[in-house]
Amino acid sequence: MIVGMADTTFARVDMVSFAKDEIQSRFSDVEIIQTTVPGMKDLPVACKKLLKKCDICMAFGMPGKELIDKQCAHEASAGIMQAQIMEEKHIIEVFVHEDEAEDPKELHKMCENRARKHALNAVYLIKKPEVLAKNAGKGLRQGKENAGPLI
Amino acid sequence: MIVGMADTTFARVDMVSFAKDEIQSRFSDVEIIQTTVPGMKDLPVACKKLLKKCDICMAFGMPGKELIDKQCAHEASAGIMQAQIMEEKHIIEVFVHEDEAEDPKELHKMCENRARKHALNAVYLIKKPEVLAKNAGKGLRQGKENAGPLI
Amino acid sequence: MIVGMADTTFARVDMVSFAKDEIQSRFSDVEIIQTTVPGMKDLPVACKKLLKKCDICMAFGMPGKELIDKQCAHEASAGIMQAQIMEEKHIIEVFVHEDEAEDPKELHKMCENRARKHALNAVYLIKKPEVLAKNAGKGLRQGKENAGPLI
Amino acid sequence: MIVGMADTTFARVDMVSFAKDEIQSRFSDVEIIQTTVPGMKDLPVACKKLLKKCDICMAFGMPGKELIDKQCAHEASAGIMQAQIMEEKHIIEVFVHEDEAEDPKELHKMCENRARKHALNAVYLIKKPEVLAKNAGKGLRQGKENAGPLI
Amino acid sequence: MIVGMADTTFARVDMVSFAKDEIQSRFSDVEIIQTTVPGMKDLPVACKKLLKKCDICMAFGMPGKELIDKQCAHEASAGIMQAQIMEEKHIIEVFVHEDEAEDPKELHKMCENRARKHALNAVYLIKKPEVLAKNAGKGLRQGKENAGPLI
Repeated sequence: MIVGMADTTFARVDMVSFAKDEIQSRFSDVEIIQTTVPGMKDLPVACKKLLKKCDICMAFGMPGKELIDKQCAHEASAGIMQAQIMEEKHIIEVFVHEDEAEDPKELHKMCENRARKHALNAVYLIKKPEVLAKNAGKGLRQGKENAGPLI
Repeated sequence: MIVGMADTTFARVDMVSFAKDEIQSRFSDVEIIQTTVPGMKDLPVACKKLLKKCDICMAFGMPGKELIDKQCAHEASAGIMQAQIMEEKHIIEVFVHEDEAEDPKELHKMCENRARKHALNAVYLIKKPEVLAKNAGKGLRQGKENAGPLI
Repeated sequence: MIVGMADTTFARVDMVSFAKDEIQSRFSDVEIIQTTVPGMKDLPVACKKLLKKCDICMAFGMPGKELIDKQCAHEASAGIMQAQIMEEKHIIEVFVHEDEAEDPKELHKMCENRARKHALNAVYLIKKPEVLAKNAGKGLRQGKENAGPLI
Repeated sequence: MIVGMADTTFARVDMVSFAKDEIQSRFSDVEIIQTTVPGMKDLPVACKKLLKKCDICMAFGMPGKELIDKQCAHEASAGIMQAQIMEEKHIIEVFVHEDEAEDPKELHKMCENRARKHALNAVYLIKKPEVLAKNAGKGLRQGKENAGPLI
Repeated sequence: MIVGMADTTFARVDMVSFAKDEIQSRFSDVEIIQTTVPGMKDLPVACKKLLKKCDICMAFGMPGKELIDKQCAHEASAGIMQAQIMEEKHIIEVFVHEDEAEDPKELHKMCENRARKHALNAVYLIKKPEVLAKNAGKGLRQGKENAGPLI
């Protein structure tokens, strides 16, 4: 199994390292291919190319706090959506918005947590769909505590 | 007839169970195939794949209360739209927003109601279009009481 | 000439009846094929299928008053746009928003007026483009009084 | 060279006449083909069809003042974008929003100015790209005075 | 290696000159092809055509301050996204919003800085991906000072 990982020089945290570590420490048979692009809006093409040789892809981005950053994040997301539908393979979007936490350390932790949990999700989607199946509707979260089932 | 059902580990209610129960208790000849993905934005690819072997698909999601959740829901919806147009088969979107009701029990009920009613809609679209035809413009609702005809 | 008409069980007015009546009382050689789906977001696939056998399609919808309804209407419109561009045939969108009028009777009238006028537009687009041509820039409206030329 | 021009019966100014006049009074070898549709959202399909036989297309629209009109204009623009990307030929969007000027005469003038200037742009794009090249970054405007270079 | 550069007559700064200078003063073996279009929304088709003969493309635009300009910028961005996904080659978007700085000189400097830095990014993406790789998650910015790593 091969996982593609695309990230940016714009992001302020190296999230791919966490994702790589999570996968490599648990699954010896998963190969990882990484591509780095300037910004979020360059991720869709990078991922589409990665999907030619990967089973699944992860797209790491870190939108800024301004309104224009939110706009860019939305445009990047729309492109990532289009790319995965065309290739008919999943691209797991791992975006952490700079305003999700005020404290830099907390934000950094959030990045690590989200990157690690989604790295596992990527592997589960391809190799262990039964792990996801048994958690259907369980209120799982990445980047923070699980919300849990509603009642 | 085969119905594909895609849901998420993010959702806080297991809506597929209601949908399955509704169909299986009424139609003995409808097969159901389920796929679970991490979040809403992973639904479009999951549904597009399901549609290769299903006559129709249902996409279950439960967007959170934050602005970013609304944004994600919109991006997921756009992807679901694209996927069904490309495959030229229906994907019935069964989304319940966490802020549609304040009380958890009421929200849970809404999830069940919407899931069950749309499960029937999925079957009608393929097997009994005449049921839908006779209700054209009748103000039917899923998740709550029907609004009924305007005058 | 064949006109496809897709409507919903969500709408609270049976707009297709008006459209059918308008066409059948004026053009004896126009055939109409109707499909009913649950909600607005199911219209694009329904229309795309209808366009396989129709010259033009009409999509009837009645978005509710809530913000989420506006969002759904936008997503439905985007899908209708995509479907018609792919098929390279027109889909005339006949949407009446529930908040276009406060009085139910007035809203109902608006539905009838818009449905009837757009039904004629559909026929003109295929059979009598010269009727549209001579009204270019004339400020025509459907659902209400014409605005007329600016000066 | 053939220019396609698509306009609407919704618009309150006959902008195509200005565009035609501008081109015909300057270029004897440019043919023009016109199509009129009911509203803005019908322009993308009309343009896509025109592009089969034209070198370039112009899409004339006049969105109203209401929020819903802005929404429609956005959806029309998205469709025009999609159509031109698919055909790989330009569609110059000539939209004048009804609230760009309060005075009807001023708005009418704006329509004429924008239509005439963009008609020339259409011809330049196909026959005289060097005219555009020498104006790169020059702050040209259509419908009003040029803004000029920043410094 | 060939870089396509598309810009507009609408922009108030000739950003392509900076980008060209940056590349030509550093890389003797990179060819540049330029196309100028009227406005931002004409960039996607221009870029899609350039990508037929170029390895990568840059799209230069300068959205105005009004709400309608923001809307246009969003529609242009969506088109640029679609074009690059279809061609599976990068289009680096170099947009500077007129309200990013109040002082014209500062804004002009921002244009130069963003154009030059992204010109290098374009070359790196094709010829030196390792430069981008080693800057993954480093908080690089174009048009202003780098933000740097979060902690």
